[in-house]
Amino acid sequence: MTDIPGDIEQLIELMARLPGLGPRSARRAVLVLLKKRGALMAPLAQAMAQVALSARDCTTCGNIGAGDTCAICADPRRATGELCVVEDVADLWAMERGGAFKGRYHVLGGTLSPLDAVGPDTLRIPRLLARVAEEGISEVILALNATVDGQTTAHYIADVLGASGVAITSLAQGVPIGGELDYLDDGTIGAALKARKRF
Amino acid sequence: MTDIPGDIEQLIELMARLPGLGPRSARRAVLVLLKKRGALMAPLAQAMAQVALSARDCTTCGNIGAGDTCAICADPRRATGELCVVEDVADLWAMERGGAFKGRYHVLGGTLSPLDAVGPDTLRIPRLLARVAEEGISEVILALNATVDGQTTAHYIADVLGASGVAITSLAQGVPIGGELDYLDDGTIGAALKARKRF
Repeated sequence: MTDIPGDIEQLIELMARLPGLGPRSARRAVLVLLKKRGALMAPLAQAMAQVALSARDCTTCGNIGAGDTCAICADPRRATGELCVVEDVADLWAMERGGAFKGRYHVLGGTLSPLDAVGPDTLRIPRLLARVAEEGISEVILALNATVDGQTTAHYIADVLGASGVAITSLAQGVPIGGELDYLDDGTIGAALKARKRF
Repeated sequence: MTDIPGDIEQLIELMARLPGLGPRSARRAVLVLLKKRGALMAPLAQAMAQVALSARDCTTCGNIGAGDTCAICADPRRATGELCVVEDVADLWAMERGGAFKGRYHVLGGTLSPLDAVGPDTLRIPRLLARVAEEGISEVILALNATVDGQTTAHYIADVLGASGVAITSLAQGVPIGGELDYLDDGTIGAALKARKRF
């Protein structure tokens, strides 16, 4: 019916699979790309092909890097004995943006979810146990999301690491910086009150 | 600061230039691409490179196609003598989705805008005059957006085509199909009332 050439149609369809883009906004994005064929479309296609070719999961921690070992694992200054366990590469990037953590990471690749058949072996939990045993880890920091799935996974990891004798900590819960009590949910206020500190 | 490899950072930056994506959602999109490297990222990069290479503006009408003449201009069944003038390829696609128009198009590539130094020669207006003179056009349908810029451009085109003797029409204005009066702006209701028809 429509007279959009086939390869443009296919491009729109692929773009529409990205999060935040539906069929309509994918079409709009492709039209912008078509207008800026030289300045944006060609470089974007090249950058994407390049990353698709070079990006690899770090065999140690699961972070994404250019080789078999990611830049963080390869950096000797980060061998502090602290291991920060995160769900996803997105969470690792968020921690790194903060710049407060100087140790290494372990990316689980998701959370435990029996209903979706995601067990410990689907995630990188066996690898985590091996690293704790081999790398002289003194503290495992559980930086999992404060969701039901995240916290279930945190409890499971704390359980299986219990015998190893390593210190297990988790991120503090409380009022976010700049947060207004009026806009916070009851759970957060409750957690912040429970964990109150001497001023 | 952050430990995102350089080429991924560059990919995020390019993605963020697409409409509807900001730095945050571009990062999220790239993370999804990284997770689906084989199933989505590689095909998307290839489709984009392919379109960047093959897409060309039709030398006749300005539509985007795979060669020098687009599929619509090349289709002999569409030589009906009716020429539909649109602002942009997006508008041409919108008309084609409707499927109601069987003639050919002329894509201006924008609207007149003296402030932005967009005059008739920047748009495809000289080419339009030439086509009307050469192609045996009987009717020019102005399907420009119902905005101030669109309507200014429509008036200009009607002016310069006046001497050619071709019939000049424009899309009807009124209540959209399924539209509720309560949600329509005053201008639309006024236009619909003015153009009322015997029931």
